[in-house]
Amino acid sequence: MRIHSEYMTVQTDHKRKFLNITPNVNAAVEKSGIRDGLVLVFPLHSNATLFVNDEESGLLQDISEWADRLAPLGPNYHHSPRSESNAGAHLQSLLLNGQACLSLANGKLELGPWQQVIYAELDGQRPKRILIKILGE
Amino acid sequence: MRIHSEYMTVQTDHKRKFLNITPNVNAAVEKSGIRDGLVLVFPLHSNATLFVNDEESGLLQDISEWADRLAPLGPNYHHSPRSESNAGAHLQSLLLNGQACLSLANGKLELGPWQQVIYAELDGQRPKRILIKILGE
Amino acid sequence: MRIHSEYMTVQTDHKRKFLNITPNVNAAVEKSGIRDGLVLVFPLHSNATLFVNDEESGLLQDISEWADRLAPLGPNYHHSPRSESNAGAHLQSLLLNGQACLSLANGKLELGPWQQVIYAELDGQRPKRILIKILGE
Repeated sequence: MRIHSEYMTVQTDHKRKFLNITPNVNAAVEKSGIRDGLVLVFPLHSNATLFVNDEESGLLQDISEWADRLAPLGPNYHHSPRSESNAGAHLQSLLLNGQACLSLANGKLELGPWQQVIYAELDGQRPKRILIKILGE
Repeated sequence: MRIHSEYMTVQTDHKRKFLNITPNVNAAVEKSGIRDGLVLVFPLHSNATLFVNDEESGLLQDISEWADRLAPLGPNYHHSPRSESNAGAHLQSLLLNGQACLSLANGKLELGPWQQVIYAELDGQRPKRILIKILGE
Repeated sequence: MRIHSEYMTVQTDHKRKFLNITPNVNAAVEKSGIRDGLVLVFPLHSNATLFVNDEESGLLQDISEWADRLAPLGPNYHHSPRSESNAGAHLQSLLLNGQACLSLANGKLELGPWQQVIYAELDGQRPKRILIKILGE
């Protein structure tokens, strides 16, 4: 069994930004030399999230507006007076999955034809870390 | 370490259909010969989803109606004019988890007494692929 | 490869209760002797859920109220007449993720500075089992 861990740090210009990090995951896979196994992609912050979906700018805008509709940002939360973080971002991180476990085969991520690994920054403008963990052989 | 991959293809008669694929996952486990480890069940499309829950027809109808209420289907999305796919189905795929990582012990999936692995087709009537990946020993 | 399984049983005093089970997961990791790998935390019931987020009492109250707003408890479900379980709890289990796959490195869970593993009991006052599965070396 071989195990490889990679940590990437992102800092977005805006509070809200969706990043396609599939190339970063592919680079970590290539660096690991592991050809077959599982890949965990895990944001080390709960005011960000991670999901697999199609990367189409209209769809990503739909996802962003939908998250704001179901879990509005703003001060009307119990969490807010005690913390600088936005409770809405934490709720949205739960709504939009939060992590992904992927399959690796023949040295490549097994994703559907349109699927991409999307990191959704929900409370950005500061450094955030994402863990990519590869386990296999 | 042993690794086994299985791909199943489904094509539903209706756009929306929930399928209990636990028997398929069990068959893949048996075929693999792996007795202990992890099982990833991952739809290779983001207008479908995968979750673990009880299989009771009333409950599955509740889940379906709830998804339609929180993420309505229809044309009122940025994604729609550019694509044949339904943005609502993509939002519902995020709402309803999207994938499952399961435990395998003594040659059997470790699920609770009522839990089943449910594939939710959200934009069907065409072939869709599901990956079952087993890693263990 | 080494594999370790641990089962914990909880019974909450109230129907709804959020428990930080990070210490339990850490104890299972320590007992396993596994230093590097993946950890699956999986409730063996679908009227409970499991997520990673910050443990701040105001935020957990926000999450609880948000789940009640998006997936109300009560009798207005198809599931209800046929079962003692509350369909709302099942919908909330889907909303709030349902399971977590974590990374283990150097004998420690890799969580962000504020992240904790939260078991959310949504239909409690009876024994519930949670599986902690560790695979690595």
